[in-house]
Amino acid sequence: MTFQLNEKLEKDTVCIGDFALSRVLLVNDQRFPWVILVPRQNDVEEYFDLSAQNYTTLMAESLYVARMMSQHFQASSMNIAALGNVVRQLHVHHVVRFESDECWPSPIWGKGSAVPYEHHALDALVKVYQSLLSECLE
Amino acid sequence: MTFQLNEKLEKDTVCIGDFALSRVLLVNDQRFPWVILVPRQNDVEEYFDLSAQNYTTLMAESLYVARMMSQHFQASSMNIAALGNVVRQLHVHHVVRFESDECWPSPIWGKGSAVPYEHHALDALVKVYQSLLSECLE
Repeated sequence: MTFQLNEKLEKDTVCIGDFALSRVLLVNDQRFPWVILVPRQNDVEEYFDLSAQNYTTLMAESLYVARMMSQHFQASSMNIAALGNVVRQLHVHHVVRFESDECWPSPIWGKGSAVPYEHHALDALVKVYQSLLSECLE
Repeated sequence: MTFQLNEKLEKDTVCIGDFALSRVLLVNDQRFPWVILVPRQNDVEEYFDLSAQNYTTLMAESLYVARMMSQHFQASSMNIAALGNVVRQLHVHHVVRFESDECWPSPIWGKGSAVPYEHHALDALVKVYQSLLSECLE
């Protein structure tokens, strides 16, 4: 069965590309550098729904994203989280936090409203991420 | 150098025991079943500060806690997160969420105030967790 991305994730993000396991999504919210990984498997809601091998792969992909984003953006802190209270499809947030950001030091979820990128800025940013994460993109 | 647990984590939690890598802490807040894993290494703030082997171990320990807590408490959702905006020492939250809990579906951090357990209830609960997680406790 073809992989189906949750509709809300589809609406709130743009696709950067695919890793071996995960779809790599950029959240369309210029308040934070924010990437979501979604394992391309249907009916997976929690980490323990994955096979052992896929869990290992997802954790490696997550670590790679966290390291690359932290370095690139000079993060004060990386927030890495699988929540799934609103969207049940397993997805892992990677959010670059700065001491100067509008939510610091609170978590970002459910605070304020997304500020979408301008269309051209979004296109350019996707290319930046494609370059940044090129080592693992298919 | 002896492992030093962050003072705020020390204050807000009680110790369940140690896994191979992590200290296992129960957050003293009866609003949520909530366990924190802290790798027993000093000067580690992000996942990518760990060695590859220790990252793999931490992810295995985290998965085990998530699975056991989800089953035991019949969670609606597990919230697994490394944030580190307030306490920089690397620590991984494992929070059992229920559709009936007071923060659902928002994340729990920074919402309301902790409701400490009664002393005897806390002692009893630590024993429940020690039994639940006995397979990996040292």
